[in-house]
Amino acid sequence: MESAGARMLAVYTPREAAELISPVSRLPILILMPVRHVSPVDDLHEGVRTGQVHFVVHDADHLDCLQELAMELGQLLHLHLKVDTGMHRGGCPAESAPTLLDRIVDHKQLHLAGVCTHFSSSGSSEETTVQQRAIFDAVLDACIDRIDSDCLVHCANTAAVFRGPAFHRSMVRVGLAWAGACPPGPVRDASPEAKTLEPVARWTSRVIQVREVEEGECVGYDGQWQARRNSMLGVVPVGYADGYPLIPLESVDVQQQRVVGLMKQDQLIGYAPVVGTVSMDQVIIDLTDLLPLLGGEGLGVGVELLSRKQDAPNGLLSLAESAGLKPHALLSCLHARIPRRYEGDVAFIETVGPEERMATG
Amino acid sequence: MESAGARMLAVYTPREAAELISPVSRLPILILMPVRHVSPVDDLHEGVRTGQVHFVVHDADHLDCLQELAMELGQLLHLHLKVDTGMHRGGCPAESAPTLLDRIVDHKQLHLAGVCTHFSSSGSSEETTVQQRAIFDAVLDACIDRIDSDCLVHCANTAAVFRGPAFHRSMVRVGLAWAGACPPGPVRDASPEAKTLEPVARWTSRVIQVREVEEGECVGYDGQWQARRNSMLGVVPVGYADGYPLIPLESVDVQQQRVVGLMKQDQLIGYAPVVGTVSMDQVIIDLTDLLPLLGGEGLGVGVELLSRKQDAPNGLLSLAESAGLKPHALLSCLHARIPRRYEGDVAFIETVGPEERMATG
Repeated sequence: MESAGARMLAVYTPREAAELISPVSRLPILILMPVRHVSPVDDLHEGVRTGQVHFVVHDADHLDCLQELAMELGQLLHLHLKVDTGMHRGGCPAESAPTLLDRIVDHKQLHLAGVCTHFSSSGSSEETTVQQRAIFDAVLDACIDRIDSDCLVHCANTAAVFRGPAFHRSMVRVGLAWAGACPPGPVRDASPEAKTLEPVARWTSRVIQVREVEEGECVGYDGQWQARRNSMLGVVPVGYADGYPLIPLESVDVQQQRVVGLMKQDQLIGYAPVVGTVSMDQVIIDLTDLLPLLGGEGLGVGVELLSRKQDAPNGLLSLAESAGLKPHALLSCLHARIPRRYEGDVAFIETVGPEERMATG
Repeated sequence: MESAGARMLAVYTPREAAELISPVSRLPILILMPVRHVSPVDDLHEGVRTGQVHFVVHDADHLDCLQELAMELGQLLHLHLKVDTGMHRGGCPAESAPTLLDRIVDHKQLHLAGVCTHFSSSGSSEETTVQQRAIFDAVLDACIDRIDSDCLVHCANTAAVFRGPAFHRSMVRVGLAWAGACPPGPVRDASPEAKTLEPVARWTSRVIQVREVEEGECVGYDGQWQARRNSMLGVVPVGYADGYPLIPLESVDVQQQRVVGLMKQDQLIGYAPVVGTVSMDQVIIDLTDLLPLLGGEGLGVGVELLSRKQDAPNGLLSLAESAGLKPHALLSCLHARIPRRYEGDVAFIETVGPEERMATG
């Protein structure tokens, strides 16, 4: 992130912040969760002492705690006031924001480092987003002479960034965009820029067994897929325990197909449908149509579960949609057990067959 | 598991097996995945050398590899022949099983340690399960004089165990049952024993912020929950990135409620509905009805996300159902980042507020 130009990192929990404070990174780290206390023996304390850690202020009660903390630690604390403009999840009501802002500005040991809000519907509703921005602007206008020029004003999450510069202010706070996607919906559809994003992760594996089933036979748990012809199936050693998402039952009924890419010498040969339910550690794919292109040999063939191509049928957005998930949820639920290899900005996730694992030790 | 009386462990991948081989445990470990090679420098090799590792044989081609491996390593390999009786995921067709079994028995360096199959629909269909058992029995009958008395015969997954002793044979292979549940469905409904299982995991957290919203206000992403009255909401620092499952949109529409337990001095006070969408790191709960019972103070109140009581509305089966997930998927997707504390047979998962984390260092 740092080498890609990020000037500040944002995390939800103090634990996540503690993992990032120097020497890992010297970038300022904004903790989104309402932190009420930091002990001098906590890992986080060093980041508070050096000013690397910034806190979000959520309400008057929370500000009391942070004020006490500043006194207790004898430290200047960098605070970002969060105004709730309609998400109603955290932050303070817009009416109380000017009072809280005054309290921060007037306190010697508190520094107003930012004012922010969060959009609830930036990907889906222009009306709601513009309304939220108007509430935010009214707070900023009311406090204009108390806000220093170095105070960061930030509101845009990924979809709001692609709504245009009127949402950018002095900092944007992208979540999904840094993972290489814009949430599906009208904003993405209307933005050529959003479509140029490239997902940061690719997930591959291999076919570890090939088998034939006859027409009419059922496959997988509760026999939810039935072969309409004699078929050649491949087993891939990846399942929901790895974070490969389940296919909701409704989709199985309507035969909406989820696919994986098949690779030969790292060239994409075509797409094979996932059949039956996803098991804990395995998925089954239908190789029948592609086997001729693979020279009849399916065992060991490369499988691309998640493509880096945005609009691929096994791309992040399609895979998430086929599971009824947000792309954010798909990415954050890839299990820690699956091995990642980082090359430049890209994470290559390779769940390989046992031979390959053995070969690489 | 070992202290609870398990005589053998089963894992899917060689990697999982390598983590368990002695000195962690001396129990035999069955690898379900088709392993085709083990290098002498691999962690797994020691387990193969001592005979602790058992392999499942899936087909003729796979048996060729294992036979070569036995020769290459100069080792006796313990093999379990898997017969596909209708799951059509792994294993060999019933017709080819006797030939494969003969090959194992006739080879000096291969030991037939088991014969097994896997039921596809043991929780949902008696007809399919009895049919699969009949196919399995036919294979066993055909090979009866080649199968030693110490050869393990196993087929029952959790639901099949509760179908009765006719499915038990010499070993049962429980997945969900060891985590303390039987899959929902007719078997569980008919089995008083299945209902006595106690889930092994409890997941708790705390309310880290309380806020008021007025009647008519919308809450969370895309405003998917609207307050029907003035409401007091609580923020809980747990979200889908921790493995707390999303609520499928259809359920939100029908106002099917997911709930969490609220705790005061570790006593259950009542259940609070989860409102709006689950965020990456947060859920919002409606405290309005329970606040009087909590003495008006919601901040810091204990939240039970996952109860150990089987039939609790926030129990494993209910929570999984509210997410459209199998209970297996819910358990295996609890993120590695959430801290576990083990007491006896139980995992206590505590995602606490920042103060508590600080207090405990």
